[in-house]
Amino acid sequence: MTTWFSESYTSDVNFTFKVQQIYSAKSKFQKIEVFETKDFGRVLVMDDRIMLTEKDEQIYHEMIVHVPLAVHTNAQDVLIIGGGDGGALRELTRYKTLATIDMVEIDSMVPDVAQEYFPKVAGNFLDSRFNLMIADGLKYVRSTQKKYDLILVDSTDPFGPGESLFTREFYGNCYDILREDGVLVNQHESPYYKSDAREVKSIYEKTISIFPIDKLYQAHIPTYPSGHWLFGFLSKKYDPLRDLQVEQWSALDLETFYYNLDLHRGSFALPNYVLKLIDKI
Amino acid sequence: MTTWFSESYTSDVNFTFKVQQIYSAKSKFQKIEVFETKDFGRVLVMDDRIMLTEKDEQIYHEMIVHVPLAVHTNAQDVLIIGGGDGGALRELTRYKTLATIDMVEIDSMVPDVAQEYFPKVAGNFLDSRFNLMIADGLKYVRSTQKKYDLILVDSTDPFGPGESLFTREFYGNCYDILREDGVLVNQHESPYYKSDAREVKSIYEKTISIFPIDKLYQAHIPTYPSGHWLFGFLSKKYDPLRDLQVEQWSALDLETFYYNLDLHRGSFALPNYVLKLIDKI
Repeated sequence: MTTWFSESYTSDVNFTFKVQQIYSAKSKFQKIEVFETKDFGRVLVMDDRIMLTEKDEQIYHEMIVHVPLAVHTNAQDVLIIGGGDGGALRELTRYKTLATIDMVEIDSMVPDVAQEYFPKVAGNFLDSRFNLMIADGLKYVRSTQKKYDLILVDSTDPFGPGESLFTREFYGNCYDILREDGVLVNQHESPYYKSDAREVKSIYEKTISIFPIDKLYQAHIPTYPSGHWLFGFLSKKYDPLRDLQVEQWSALDLETFYYNLDLHRGSFALPNYVLKLIDKI
Repeated sequence: MTTWFSESYTSDVNFTFKVQQIYSAKSKFQKIEVFETKDFGRVLVMDDRIMLTEKDEQIYHEMIVHVPLAVHTNAQDVLIIGGGDGGALRELTRYKTLATIDMVEIDSMVPDVAQEYFPKVAGNFLDSRFNLMIADGLKYVRSTQKKYDLILVDSTDPFGPGESLFTREFYGNCYDILREDGVLVNQHESPYYKSDAREVKSIYEKTISIFPIDKLYQAHIPTYPSGHWLFGFLSKKYDPLRDLQVEQWSALDLETFYYNLDLHRGSFALPNYVLKLIDKI
């Protein structure tokens, strides 16, 4: 049966498209739905928010993975917080130099649904370097003894199950378990709609006091609210532009849908209104 | 009365928001509506497509004006094709070095409505350098004897009244009336939804055979389809990056909402899928 799905960007603004629902369930943490659509292919929706679409999921997953790994080319041990759909994992597994990839996902239903309905996204759960832990991300970073070179905070939004991943305590713990040249990349919400912009500001204010290097970068993700999405590059040592390893990354010869080295540089050039939001001008 | 307005991005995808209609009319060329909204302020809609919103019109207007004028800093005579809302004109009038600004707008109702309902956008129609001609853009560029340094093609979409502004003949005529260091910037549609992407390809294929320099750049415009909008920088001599006049533009000390010189450079760094669309990789 064909119906219309709407994601509310604000109480007055909706993004609406025709869907055929092929899966729906309630996990312990959230409502999970899978739709077939004409324009976006399959779409994963959690608590009424689009998590990914087959048409453009590569934009988000490439930007959260290749940006830090084109800078920190010696990274060996990676931690994904959230990311249960497997998309960031897929991009990570393309780097043969990585030794371990740990994922801490709170909701076991997410990897299960992704593997069943999104095989192109979730096709790397059997990689020998990969270790999935179904656990609370905040508790994990609070207690683990392991050190990491790269942490990806691939979370849902700052309400519901992802909420604790936007706290000062969480970021402080991440800082502690990163090696001295470690990098953290977090999905950083959108600067456009008022309540989203407030989150951008709030996340930045928390992280800038913890990480010596904290720079935002952006991507065009048409199926996320406003299409203007931000990521944070938080680092103890490496600068995302000064330390970009052009030759090393090029030598990997990775085929990408969205990312390239010019775009890497360009993505850190933010509009004035976003710079103002984070008090940079 | 509050209702919902929907812009169809495809037959299956809508962008929908709550509106109060404060103006509606049919001109000889198109339906024109003005809405009040909570999130976007006033919104100008023509033939059911958003033309501008008070919240983000500066993004489009700054990107169509400041990008060429930060490169061609000696421009004196400017032609706007379309642009009847006055937003590009407003940004142009900030350059004291410009001598004449001609606008050829086919629909006299657009400047009238803009001046009545969007005074912050359309506040510069009395600038002494400005000359408004209500005429067909294609016919004008075919017959005028005047030469220009900069042409802005600030048109509606490639169907309806704007259609002839997407023809090879139109671009050829624009080439002919540009001085030998002249620049043309055109709004270049969005690369995301299939039918829009076809237009991007089609415009590019027409212009690349006419202009020796033809480079696309992008902006985040959340109220246009997909939020990922392209512009073309078409030029006889100047390259938009190599010839960027950093010191001269900075010396103007213009306050901008979106544009800055870093972003100028970054905006030309296109994603791979857009480069593929125009056969650049």
